[in-house]
Amino acid sequence: MDNRFGPFHAEKVRNDIGKITGNDYATKDYDKIHSYLYDESFPLTYPKISENCVLAKPGSPAEIAEILKYAGENRIPVVPRGGGTGVVGGAMPAYPGIILSLERLNRVLEIDEKNLMMTLEGGATLSALLEALEKQGKLFFPIHPGDEGAEVGGMVATNAGGTRAVKHGIMRNHIKALEVVLPTGEIVSLGGKLLKNNMGYDLMQLMIGSEGTLGVITKVTLRLYAKNEFSNTMLVSFPSQEEASDAVPQILQSGITPLACEYMDRELTLASAEELGFAWPAKKGSVDLMFIVDGVSEDDLYGNCEKIVEICEQWGAVDSVVAETPKEQKEILAVRSNCYTPYKSLVADITDVAVPPSAVPAFFEDVRKIGEKYGNRIVSLGHIADGNMHNFLMNKGGRLPENYEELKTEIYKTAIKFGGTITAEHGTGKTRKDFMNLQFSDKEIDLMKAIKKAFDPEGILNPGTIFD
Amino acid sequence: MDNRFGPFHAEKVRNDIGKITGNDYATKDYDKIHSYLYDESFPLTYPKISENCVLAKPGSPAEIAEILKYAGENRIPVVPRGGGTGVVGGAMPAYPGIILSLERLNRVLEIDEKNLMMTLEGGATLSALLEALEKQGKLFFPIHPGDEGAEVGGMVATNAGGTRAVKHGIMRNHIKALEVVLPTGEIVSLGGKLLKNNMGYDLMQLMIGSEGTLGVITKVTLRLYAKNEFSNTMLVSFPSQEEASDAVPQILQSGITPLACEYMDRELTLASAEELGFAWPAKKGSVDLMFIVDGVSEDDLYGNCEKIVEICEQWGAVDSVVAETPKEQKEILAVRSNCYTPYKSLVADITDVAVPPSAVPAFFEDVRKIGEKYGNRIVSLGHIADGNMHNFLMNKGGRLPENYEELKTEIYKTAIKFGGTITAEHGTGKTRKDFMNLQFSDKEIDLMKAIKKAFDPEGILNPGTIFD
Repeated sequence: MDNRFGPFHAEKVRNDIGKITGNDYATKDYDKIHSYLYDESFPLTYPKISENCVLAKPGSPAEIAEILKYAGENRIPVVPRGGGTGVVGGAMPAYPGIILSLERLNRVLEIDEKNLMMTLEGGATLSALLEALEKQGKLFFPIHPGDEGAEVGGMVATNAGGTRAVKHGIMRNHIKALEVVLPTGEIVSLGGKLLKNNMGYDLMQLMIGSEGTLGVITKVTLRLYAKNEFSNTMLVSFPSQEEASDAVPQILQSGITPLACEYMDRELTLASAEELGFAWPAKKGSVDLMFIVDGVSEDDLYGNCEKIVEICEQWGAVDSVVAETPKEQKEILAVRSNCYTPYKSLVADITDVAVPPSAVPAFFEDVRKIGEKYGNRIVSLGHIADGNMHNFLMNKGGRLPENYEELKTEIYKTAIKFGGTITAEHGTGKTRKDFMNLQFSDKEIDLMKAIKKAFDPEGILNPGTIFD
Repeated sequence: MDNRFGPFHAEKVRNDIGKITGNDYATKDYDKIHSYLYDESFPLTYPKISENCVLAKPGSPAEIAEILKYAGENRIPVVPRGGGTGVVGGAMPAYPGIILSLERLNRVLEIDEKNLMMTLEGGATLSALLEALEKQGKLFFPIHPGDEGAEVGGMVATNAGGTRAVKHGIMRNHIKALEVVLPTGEIVSLGGKLLKNNMGYDLMQLMIGSEGTLGVITKVTLRLYAKNEFSNTMLVSFPSQEEASDAVPQILQSGITPLACEYMDRELTLASAEELGFAWPAKKGSVDLMFIVDGVSEDDLYGNCEKIVEICEQWGAVDSVVAETPKEQKEILAVRSNCYTPYKSLVADITDVAVPPSAVPAFFEDVRKIGEKYGNRIVSLGHIADGNMHNFLMNKGGRLPENYEELKTEIYKTAIKFGGTITAEHGTGKTRKDFMNLQFSDKEIDLMKAIKKAFDPEGILNPGTIFD
């Protein structure tokens, strides 16, 4: 183990943690911890991890505080673990230490109708959140990163995005308050049920997206919105990536902001639809844009849909399909959601770069050239109105292609060249941390490290994520 | 001077700065600097300031970097100065040192229609921003803190709010990229023309609202939105504060989000209207809500207005006035904007607390009791849908009332009791920094100080603001 940490004797640590959580909630048995060792990262790009861990399942913020104090005193690494649905190894243990699962802090505490807010424990799943709102019936939370096993604490720690960011932005925009256990064991409440708050520095904003390296998020208050009853899904097909991506800014400038605007290479949707046993309704062209559109009335909704089709046609669209039944709508969404599955065994990695929306066509062209240069058949989908592209880099017979590092780095550098970012929504985690210097100056990285040091002087919280 | 700073010889510092900026842009003459010594704070609550200052007007970020390096080496305080429209002394020099005016970095650099963004230098005024957008004609920036002399760098540094935050939130939500000169002299670019960006820690979020204590903001990229052509202004009158404030959450829950929703004690609007020579159109009741409503069509707009009136009537409204002409609309807005002027000579201070919106009625009741207890005739207006109240605390014959500190502290404590904040939009500055411990734990303040230390090891940037 890294010499900044103390010695790690799993048996002793398990016993010590058991005294805090109760023995039922502390284990070092491999068969009980192995499902906590990995996340949804692409197996070929797993970071190096340690299996020599103690899994702790505390029942309260106070127990988490005790565990962190104990870990600080003994210099033992602690990895906070939410739903494990991340894809950059952020919740995988790089060192022997404690895996801190939030799963027992899983309650939806309150839906506050008057303030249009809800409060949940950090380990409550997105699925529990959605179910509680469904039951309440009137209010709506817009962020959906895809996997409903995600836990809200993790969605805060990773500043989750997803398909509906076009209209509603990212997780950060909707977080009003957090309860956080600091690495040094203090429990703090940041923010409040407040729409404006300008006292001091905003530590809550720093916590959002810190990927479990600055604190353990035990309670989250989120902003809710009145449901917009009228929404629909539509597909518009284009002959080429460039024509599709050129159309998108025109739509936004027209004043229509769809809930979602997804780009999909046709190859991906055909494979996904085939696997699900559906027919993909778009036939002409070679790429599709999928829109989820809403409106304040049925007229407004269909007016928006028509305007989108009109603009797309001006920019080269060759076909459009508006879902006419809830079944058709469901199928289109299911095909989009399932796009990764048929490629699971084929990909080496999937990027998460973003560029300014206007640069998407040029970025597409560069990615195609990079694919040709490296002999990699890159296919793409993405949250195109956000400029956020997921490029599927293919593996070679189940292994990383020989030139994988160069290929990936060249795509990252291309995104940066256009003023982009290496990761738009998945985060830095363990698998992208070595590329920080492509995006940031030394001074910026030094400042980030100084912040980490201020919060976590012993460096025990999630070491190996964001920083070494 | 505080012994953490070096000796300050104005003549020498002026000469040294003149070598960086050119002699025309460095002065120590009182008649040239006196208008840079104060902001729009309430004169009776001015913090203690130093008039022994050198005013620097650098022409580029590189010159600012040189000035900050010079100041760091010589441990000389530097106060960045935007439009000077703040009200908490944030841009007033607490110590002998350099006042760094951004006024020469005043250009609107770009309106990027494809990405729906615009980029300005830090010293560009809100008025220049609005003029540039007016000329372009299609796009819209939603934040308006009231005084169009505000500079965008200052609006970022103070995370400005204003009346239109109900629908569009605060400055933070619309900032995409910043160029910042750090206190140690490095120039960094934070963020980008990106809608999502999750690499590393988000230093840009930390810079927003840091009130000139972590860096000097030299360039700002803002998100723009397509104009919503249809909007109108309306007044709804109620018999009491409580009835008005109870109605507001009901409107938001109904799915209508007005651009603005302002609460005004009738006394304030009558005095303001009289001063402007207008008749205030609301006659019944004793308090008014002013709404700015928009819609995707004229039908939608008037539908929204009707629904608001309907809900308000259910909650006790006694009258409503929808502006029927642009002139009427202008007059209502002018009366609201002018509410402070007739009270300028009467107030001791105006609070900027916020509470959860649902707590506004109870907060109103407590403030009334506090006013009675301290014999102060408190009148109020506020951005009520944000829970953000400005309570006018009256002076006594042109002086602070004897019990002013207790009165103010009791209002702050009341806001905190409801889960509120001492300052919703004006900031901490110099006049509220002593109340940090009412809102934050020692640990939180320690973390803020550690962040300040990481950015500004010599403590030269805007000392006395937020921290001593």
